Amino acid sequence: MNNWTAETITEWFKGLQDRICGSLETLDGKGKFQEDLWVRLEGGGGRTRIIEGDLIEKGGVNFSEVHGVLSEQAAKALHTQPGTFFATGVSIVLHPKSPMMPIIHMNVRYFEMNDSIWWFGGGIDLTPHYIVPEDAKFFHQYLKSTCDKHHADYHPKFKKWADDYFFIKHRKETRGIGGIFFDRLAGQDGFTKAERFAFTQDVGDSFVPIYEHLANQNRDLPYTDQEKDWQFHRRGRYVEFNLVWDRGTKFGLETNGRTESILMSLPAQASWTYNHQVEPNSREAFTLANLNKEADWLK
Amino acid sequence: MNNWTAETITEWFKGLQDRICGSLETLDGKGKFQEDLWVRLEGGGGRTRIIEGDLIEKGGVNFSEVHGVLSEQAAKALHTQPGTFFATGVSIVLHPKSPMMPIIHMNVRYFEMNDSIWWFGGGIDLTPHYIVPEDAKFFHQYLKSTCDKHHADYHPKFKKWADDYFFIKHRKETRGIGGIFFDRLAGQDGFTKAERFAFTQDVGDSFVPIYEHLANQNRDLPYTDQEKDWQFHRRGRYVEFNLVWDRGTKFGLETNGRTESILMSLPAQASWTYNHQVEPNSREAFTLANLNKEADWLK
Repeated sequence: MNNWTAETITEWFKGLQDRICGSLETLDGKGKFQEDLWVRLEGGGGRTRIIEGDLIEKGGVNFSEVHGVLSEQAAKALHTQPGTFFATGVSIVLHPKSPMMPIIHMNVRYFEMNDSIWWFGGGIDLTPHYIVPEDAKFFHQYLKSTCDKHHADYHPKFKKWADDYFFIKHRKETRGIGGIFFDRLAGQDGFTKAERFAFTQDVGDSFVPIYEHLANQNRDLPYTDQEKDWQFHRRGRYVEFNLVWDRGTKFGLETNGRTESILMSLPAQASWTYNHQVEPNSREAFTLANLNKEADWLK
Repeated sequence: MNNWTAETITEWFKGLQDRICGSLETLDGKGKFQEDLWVRLEGGGGRTRIIEGDLIEKGGVNFSEVHGVLSEQAAKALHTQPGTFFATGVSIVLHPKSPMMPIIHMNVRYFEMNDSIWWFGGGIDLTPHYIVPEDAKFFHQYLKSTCDKHHADYHPKFKKWADDYFFIKHRKETRGIGGIFFDRLAGQDGFTKAERFAFTQDVGDSFVPIYEHLANQNRDLPYTDQEKDWQFHRRGRYVEFNLVWDRGTKFGLETNGRTESILMSLPAQASWTYNHQVEPNSREAFTLANLNKEADWLK
């Protein structure tokens, strides 16, 4: 298809949400998605789907399509001009029950301004409570292969973008082991809309095989109360990133977005301990030592 | 004393911290404050004191005195001009173990710019997990009496300021039942520095009797696991306010403040449930229904 429109792209995103939800229910084995349909007064709406299951303690797979007139505040936040806009996308955060499983996030989105300007954005990043080098290598390798099918520059550029974006500045640590992040992919460098969307679709379609692999590797591992406590503390950092630094969250909360859909990214339970310390040479210490932009899991 | 200087005000704040910590240890009966002294490379430092006790699950009573050159970013955030600055104050957040006890926050501070401009700021606000009208009335009455000793305009003005400040915009609910908030109290309206500081001192000194009264009323009340769960969810909202909207927290995190001292305000554990609902006519519903700016507990 060479003639993607706002409508056909929207339909594709809806289908992606359906397929991902179906795969995750099968993988979880117990949880079923509960759907809330919502309408945005100013135009558009969404399908918020939440799962509370066996593998996934709390997860959301959201689709939305919103349109209207961009307020001055929103235009400023998006570094664009006021005007009419159209935005659609799928956004996922899964918090697993087991601390041996990573938190995963994926987002793919499409944006239009004044019926003429368009761009794609998105990303996937992984936040293991305990970094497992083999899993980290698998994850980055999978994303690299996805990127390499489209352009040799994509992976190095979008990996660095993720390292810079998913960074908790006040902790001087990355949220997790990164992944890829991209935005404003439009007609620059001779790319067609079809090419940019084909890449975005491949990113969306990479979510299920990646998460299935990580679940198969880790879901049945035993864990202790102490490891569960560590998970609560790592989730605390996740909350800090999302509420303090995540541009999507801030934009949503400041522009009167649907709060419950935006904050589905927060975990069921999180902990904070003043000046929390880890044992030297522990798996917790290994994880902390590798939450930085320099870690290279592909080597 | 009619000749308050940055140094003598700083000493008074240090003494306030000492007195409050002593009273809270006595009140708690078990917890002892652990102190971290820290130095700010660019000038000044602080005394962070954390208690984990019987009454208070996690609490911080912080003193700091920082000075230097205000960065352009920091000056902008403070709506002032770049230049040399001096800032000192005491900041408190106490998260009780029991959901029948409220979360309390108090802050008093003094600021100087370019050795000439000066102002005081501060506030106290209460976040009950369960609103108790008699406690709410006591709390607001105490603050009103404190304000009325200094100026008839103080209480109406500073109460409204608190209602507007401690507001979780994306939830359209107040953080708790409010209190008082004030900032930039300088020589306007013929006030002297001594008068402004005397008021700030009275606010600081009101903290212990207020918290003692609330503890005596509520600390021994029984509670259920379900009520504890409600506490975790209310704490989630507290986290949302502090990380998304609290100007002090944002300013600290964005200007490279001491993260552990700033985030001592976060609770030991917090919960989020998608679209969390309460039973009609329950105490939880009563509390939610009264988390708004219109609630008037003095009548």
